[in-house]
Amino acid sequence: MRKPRLMTPGPAPVPEDVLLELARPVIHHRSAEAKQVIVECAELLKEVFQTKNDVMILTASGTGAMEAAAVNTVPKGGKAIVLSAGYFGARWASVCKAYGIEVVNLETEWGRPVDPATVENALAAHPDTVCVMGTLSETSTGTGHPIAEIGRIVAKTDAVFAVDGISGVGAMECRTDAWKIDILCVGSQKALMLPPGLAFVAASAKAWAKIDAFNAPAFYFNLKSARKKMAEFDTPYTPAHTLILALRASLRRIHAEGIENVWERHRVMSEACQAGISALGLELFSSRPAEGLTAFHVPAGLKDGDIRNKLFDRFGITTVGGQDKLKGKIIRVGHMGYMDELDVIAGLAALEIVLNELGFEVEAGRAVVAAQQVLLGQKAPVAVG
Amino acid sequence: MRKPRLMTPGPAPVPEDVLLELARPVIHHRSAEAKQVIVECAELLKEVFQTKNDVMILTASGTGAMEAAAVNTVPKGGKAIVLSAGYFGARWASVCKAYGIEVVNLETEWGRPVDPATVENALAAHPDTVCVMGTLSETSTGTGHPIAEIGRIVAKTDAVFAVDGISGVGAMECRTDAWKIDILCVGSQKALMLPPGLAFVAASAKAWAKIDAFNAPAFYFNLKSARKKMAEFDTPYTPAHTLILALRASLRRIHAEGIENVWERHRVMSEACQAGISALGLELFSSRPAEGLTAFHVPAGLKDGDIRNKLFDRFGITTVGGQDKLKGKIIRVGHMGYMDELDVIAGLAALEIVLNELGFEVEAGRAVVAAQQVLLGQKAPVAVG
Repeated sequence: MRKPRLMTPGPAPVPEDVLLELARPVIHHRSAEAKQVIVECAELLKEVFQTKNDVMILTASGTGAMEAAAVNTVPKGGKAIVLSAGYFGARWASVCKAYGIEVVNLETEWGRPVDPATVENALAAHPDTVCVMGTLSETSTGTGHPIAEIGRIVAKTDAVFAVDGISGVGAMECRTDAWKIDILCVGSQKALMLPPGLAFVAASAKAWAKIDAFNAPAFYFNLKSARKKMAEFDTPYTPAHTLILALRASLRRIHAEGIENVWERHRVMSEACQAGISALGLELFSSRPAEGLTAFHVPAGLKDGDIRNKLFDRFGITTVGGQDKLKGKIIRVGHMGYMDELDVIAGLAALEIVLNELGFEVEAGRAVVAAQQVLLGQKAPVAVG
Repeated sequence: MRKPRLMTPGPAPVPEDVLLELARPVIHHRSAEAKQVIVECAELLKEVFQTKNDVMILTASGTGAMEAAAVNTVPKGGKAIVLSAGYFGARWASVCKAYGIEVVNLETEWGRPVDPATVENALAAHPDTVCVMGTLSETSTGTGHPIAEIGRIVAKTDAVFAVDGISGVGAMECRTDAWKIDILCVGSQKALMLPPGLAFVAASAKAWAKIDAFNAPAFYFNLKSARKKMAEFDTPYTPAHTLILALRASLRRIHAEGIENVWERHRVMSEACQAGISALGLELFSSRPAEGLTAFHVPAGLKDGDIRNKLFDRFGITTVGGQDKLKGKIIRVGHMGYMDELDVIAGLAALEIVLNELGFEVEAGRAVVAAQQVLLGQKAPVAVG
């Protein structure tokens, strides 16, 4: 027997009742019944995103939402400051380059959070910046960025602040309106507890002013069309409607738990995971860990593939390795969405067993105890970085 | 009791076993298991599309595939001939306009097929045409267009032929390579028997030469990225992987039935539906009906909404009305995907009952008998137009 245990930083596990929604007979996406589903999702999405603005639903990966944010906001030749601190931060720059948007790359060492002061300096040096593009949770490094602080800085300028919240929203505190996020991009397959296939964009009045000021080279990802249709609880093109039906089920779950409690659950899972990994003498990769995943250095003498394959073969646990320049150097463990503290403890126990089997001796139970101490409030969260 | 009977020209009904695939626990899209699913889909898609070229899988509506075809093939300022014979033909022009592609609009009366001679003349008048954009099955009018003939004409020129096969592929004969279709666009929610959310693009060597000749303003829909990843049985961004899992199940069904038999089933359903509707004295809208749906004029004295609502309230049958200038004028009945001849007969019986109840007297059983005669081969297909 090998039970599937999806511990990747997206896709994340989906609740059984949400999965069953997907197996219901397909309904027509323009029917009264389908519209009612969107009516309900529209309200619940605002709550999860902590915004008063309409949240638009796109049928796409999260990258589609990032593209929509970039091309609808910054005209060709316009300038964007990209907060590049990992593989997904760099994706903003790739999107911009494809559309002729001038990029000011603000590089931060992978695994470190963006320093808000550097954003302030960059905005001063580039007062013609149309958009600052950042990341709430950088999935490639497991780092959470100080979005609230950066939002305050960008808000003082004419630029808008676009945030990739794909692996962050739902897995860590994110107050879109209060933090002055002008465009928030989210994907379905992370803490929203759905399979991949939907993306979401919320835009502020400041963002709409920029979007309305020019004809963006966008058709499928045209946000004006999306806004117009969303006002009628509809979408411009046939949406992945079974996923929207499942979205309603997952949003109802989040609403019932309460978004602040959902954040707190992720915070505790994250600290427990960090404490457990540190207790084994392993080194956390990020100096400011995100709360939906934990990244740690592959211990000297071991290969990431050996650890990950053994976790999968023995216990059905799927994790991911490093991307790009972190290939082979780190392992990333997801704890977001349909997961609780006990899943994290089980994952740590599996890691202990697998490390010992690979000849990397650790004291059995050490990580598990450290994690439990966090849950019991007996121990301060581990120091990181 | 009201059983759901989805008789719309997309989304189409999905087989129960395919729906259940969607309810399986989510797996990671970069796992060996996920790759194996794409390996199998890659072969089966070629068979359904009748092409030797790789079929790329996009997470999007069919419109996303059309956008990909247009922006990757025709540079800004380049010229496209759009075969506009309905709402979806016109969509090609809208996509082009959003990206600064010059459109030569070849208008055909809605409900009539495109005359291949007009395409030949337009190509002669516009020898700098980069792409001719047509439609296999125009869903808004229920018309099938003579794609093979047009393909032969375009093949003699430097232009490529892009075809929206969204509601056509699987529901009617389509031989991509033999008919010289250079870019075929398909959606998941029609005859492929899946919910909406995936789109597909197949491109010929002639198309790739155009695509490779310039840097398209495309990121999410960049076909070069899609081709590169598809060669590794992967996708550039997180795909809607549960839908790909379901795709494998539906493609296995089509393979088992045989694509030519699938076309034949749709041809018979289509002729049976046309015969039944004509037998009631109703007028078919199209002079060259598509085979995945049948469109007919709303009989004088009745409202389309009354007929459609009664079909739904009484029997759970969902149909659609007309779009744009056909609003209120026609009713469209889908018979594609997971449907057989008996579903069509049941739909016709429902129509007979509902028309009588609305005071439009028809002889009970007349449409049903006419349809059965088609199935029994006792009657030539009804004359249309």
